[in-house]
Amino acid sequence: MPRYVNFTLMGKHRWGLVVDGGVLELTSSPYDGGPLAVEGEDEGGVRGDVLPWDLLVLDPPARPTKVVAVGRNYAEHAAELGNDVPAEPLLFIKPPSCLIGHDAAIVYPTGQTELVHHEGELALVIGRRARHVAEADADRYILGYTVMNDVTARDLQRKDVQFTRAKSFDTFGPLGPWVDTDFAPADQRIRVHVNGELRQDSTLDKMVFQPRFLVAYVSRIMTLEPGDVITTGTPSGVGPLLPGDTVEVSIAGLGALRNAVVAVSGS
Amino acid sequence: MPRYVNFTLMGKHRWGLVVDGGVLELTSSPYDGGPLAVEGEDEGGVRGDVLPWDLLVLDPPARPTKVVAVGRNYAEHAAELGNDVPAEPLLFIKPPSCLIGHDAAIVYPTGQTELVHHEGELALVIGRRARHVAEADADRYILGYTVMNDVTARDLQRKDVQFTRAKSFDTFGPLGPWVDTDFAPADQRIRVHVNGELRQDSTLDKMVFQPRFLVAYVSRIMTLEPGDVITTGTPSGVGPLLPGDTVEVSIAGLGALRNAVVAVSGS
Repeated sequence: MPRYVNFTLMGKHRWGLVVDGGVLELTSSPYDGGPLAVEGEDEGGVRGDVLPWDLLVLDPPARPTKVVAVGRNYAEHAAELGNDVPAEPLLFIKPPSCLIGHDAAIVYPTGQTELVHHEGELALVIGRRARHVAEADADRYILGYTVMNDVTARDLQRKDVQFTRAKSFDTFGPLGPWVDTDFAPADQRIRVHVNGELRQDSTLDKMVFQPRFLVAYVSRIMTLEPGDVITTGTPSGVGPLLPGDTVEVSIAGLGALRNAVVAVSGS
Repeated sequence: MPRYVNFTLMGKHRWGLVVDGGVLELTSSPYDGGPLAVEGEDEGGVRGDVLPWDLLVLDPPARPTKVVAVGRNYAEHAAELGNDVPAEPLLFIKPPSCLIGHDAAIVYPTGQTELVHHEGELALVIGRRARHVAEADADRYILGYTVMNDVTARDLQRKDVQFTRAKSFDTFGPLGPWVDTDFAPADQRIRVHVNGELRQDSTLDKMVFQPRFLVAYVSRIMTLEPGDVITTGTPSGVGPLLPGDTVEVSIAGLGALRNAVVAVSGS
């Protein structure tokens, strides 16, 4: 806590603060450059009554200009796909167009892939512009943390070698439910359940490259903008998703991101 | 013609229309959804006097949410790097943070790479949201064409296998000088000069996958937003850039994109 959501109500995108029983609408986004964005001390202005959860459609809790993802950042996951752990973070980019919020549907790209995998991950959200940041200063640039499912068409990933097509389909970037500005990654458990069955189960201390290091590393290459997301890689246990499945990625002390998988004609 | 530029004057980003002797400021962007954006017939409102070129700092002529790039799209270039031409377009993504305009400096990432290459390319700019577009309809979604230099740290590209780091450094995406909404790619000459010496020299008809096909192909994977850029790959002749060099990518009938390479302490 505090936790911020981005939601749609009456056709309009809004920012909210999670409170007992629901969400209070904020009068400004956590990225507007006020103290809220970077210090997390002042909760800013709120408007109206508490909105109950069932009224809200949650959007991704960040509006990134880019999602920088890290491959092979847990040794056991690198091994399960027959890869070594790289000496430096292995980066790829997911486009903003793939992002969806909590409870939105992952649309199966029927006819384009026959093997879609879940990849549960811890993601961080940038709170202020970051360039050539030192690892020791990285926390000042991290607004908070959220949960990501780096959905991947494994067959296309193997075929293309480049990860881009496999990782970039619309809806292949569930993110949420919220950004928690107090969460501090340590040895919390990260798990993925599909239809209630445990598939991935690890702890965040097993990441090869930790979030602060990643912010420093990425910011030496490309400027990170407020709202940009770095997703930190998945532990072992990746496996298939099929239309009709429900997948939940949960991180202890942070939250659970749930999405159904659907097949849509002409998608 | 018409040709649109994005420029900075007195600290403010503005859109302009290229006219004899300079630029007329537009009262709205070519993406604002008016007929200008999609039909290219109405030139929209203009404001003030003709601004001479030497007053203007040109920004990239598009504000993409993503730059989708195509690898190995000229057979001779695939061969010079020891690769086959892929059966389908090979996609990767460059982040918006790498983009710079005509005459801006490419900053050499000293200490992170020792082999930076130029890659001159034809780029297209999306004018309206595109999803599952048919190749025959693609022109309706293309606002126009511009010139790109897909600057690449060749040593990091080879080391990482994934292209992302090599292609994503700040300033590694020169784009411009303008978007030409009448340009129609055919067999026009595309050339790259470094310090006046010819390095790349080909014609656009040698592209394996042509722009309309690429719009259709990419839009089946990810929704393309107005301002998004697809850059269509480079012909053979790629080679090194060093601090102090000036590189110019020119496409006959479209324009010439010129950028100096500099080394900056702490970049």
